[in-house]
Amino acid sequence: MNCNVPTDICFSFSGFQARGGKTDVHKDGWGIAFFEGKGARLFLDPLPSAHSPVAELVRNYPIKSKNVVAHIRKATQGIVNLENTHPFVRELWGHQWIFAHNGHLPNYQPRLNGRFLPVGCTDSEMAFCWLMQEVAAKFTTPPPSPEDLFFVLAELTRQLGAVGEFNFLLANGETLFAHSSTQLTYIVRKAPFTSASLKDQEMSVDFSEVTTPQDRVAVIATQPLTENESWITMDPGTLWCFREGLVAHTAKTVVGVKHPLCR
Amino acid sequence: MNCNVPTDICFSFSGFQARGGKTDVHKDGWGIAFFEGKGARLFLDPLPSAHSPVAELVRNYPIKSKNVVAHIRKATQGIVNLENTHPFVRELWGHQWIFAHNGHLPNYQPRLNGRFLPVGCTDSEMAFCWLMQEVAAKFTTPPPSPEDLFFVLAELTRQLGAVGEFNFLLANGETLFAHSSTQLTYIVRKAPFTSASLKDQEMSVDFSEVTTPQDRVAVIATQPLTENESWITMDPGTLWCFREGLVAHTAKTVVGVKHPLCR
Repeated sequence: MNCNVPTDICFSFSGFQARGGKTDVHKDGWGIAFFEGKGARLFLDPLPSAHSPVAELVRNYPIKSKNVVAHIRKATQGIVNLENTHPFVRELWGHQWIFAHNGHLPNYQPRLNGRFLPVGCTDSEMAFCWLMQEVAAKFTTPPPSPEDLFFVLAELTRQLGAVGEFNFLLANGETLFAHSSTQLTYIVRKAPFTSASLKDQEMSVDFSEVTTPQDRVAVIATQPLTENESWITMDPGTLWCFREGLVAHTAKTVVGVKHPLCR
Repeated sequence: MNCNVPTDICFSFSGFQARGGKTDVHKDGWGIAFFEGKGARLFLDPLPSAHSPVAELVRNYPIKSKNVVAHIRKATQGIVNLENTHPFVRELWGHQWIFAHNGHLPNYQPRLNGRFLPVGCTDSEMAFCWLMQEVAAKFTTPPPSPEDLFFVLAELTRQLGAVGEFNFLLANGETLFAHSSTQLTYIVRKAPFTSASLKDQEMSVDFSEVTTPQDRVAVIATQPLTENESWITMDPGTLWCFREGLVAHTAKTVVGVKHPLCR
């Protein structure tokens, strides 16, 4: 989720939580990171989100944030334990960076110089460490502008995306980057707000009752979370940059794919 | 807390939680980190722990861990917000490092080369970044032995401790380092286990009912958490290294202080 005003994610999280072991198979742990200012709090649990006491807390505790990254895991590489649970976090340039991956990077062994090293043994955390290492090396007078950062990330994503399935979310507290390698979808909720019903739980909310006319909330998910809203498919091979609840940039990461907003 | 078997901290946390805004003045946020294997989960809240929904979860959810670092904050530098909330975390050598500070380092402006930078604006996080930077630079073929690491940390602590009050806890999942700059106390609970009563809450536990004879649990705190056990005062100017629920090393960090175990 990426917004222009601090917003709680209780509604979306309710649907999301059910996919971790109840309505879907992603039962190998889950995690969620909330930015609040420059700070981030990360809740992780190797238990299925549908049965996690920590997930119950998150569902009922309206933490307000402009940038949230959540992940439910289906283990492909690395056993089910805490250190292999997404999202992962690293500090760069005095900012927290949060990363979650959905996909599979077979036989991926990047050259890591030690600046960022994985704690667990997933392809995902390895990819994150490589991205951070390359981003850090690229800018000698950090921090870069969001636009410069985006185009460097797009180039790195092109390289890494060639290895395998690499849907990811990356956030640094101001910007949320989302890469559709095989599947990703989003919606921007803004005035006039309507009501929405979750696909995975019997739950509805009338957003007009809990928002102001200026609010903008972008929600990005592998599959639509609600059944009566128009989610936009993010074509495979596209990287997106969300700021203040809007799409700020997009770029192709595979040659030849169609998408309307590319520069 | 540092133990030889994964142990929950619910009892000690109950007393500790009360000190954050109920029985003591450390009301400016709190946090707790649990290592589980190499992974760590960090719960942070800028609310007083005595009134925090996240603290209620931690008090009631028996997370088992061999190394736990918890902190309740009384702000001296930096406003009350999430990024200034202890403990802080950084990755080095593929391990999570967790740091909490109780003290005050006036006019502290270390030279930071960018490898680790503070996200918030506390003297504490700055000190942590400097420690990590210097430790990283000291060992060209990491990871060092726990003993080598201890003596490097002792030397760095001597330098930093000259700046001001610098009580800290630092843990990397295997080892817990504790520095008494002005005040710190500890207890090692082992067989034969007895019962203990909290000072800050009406609560007792009979440890003999929840332990095995091999268990060893070291608890380190600014002030004793229980009223009917013999806590050991850690003399000002001493650094301690706990492993598997035992004191593994100690060292002086100020010339001339007395303490029995120094090498």
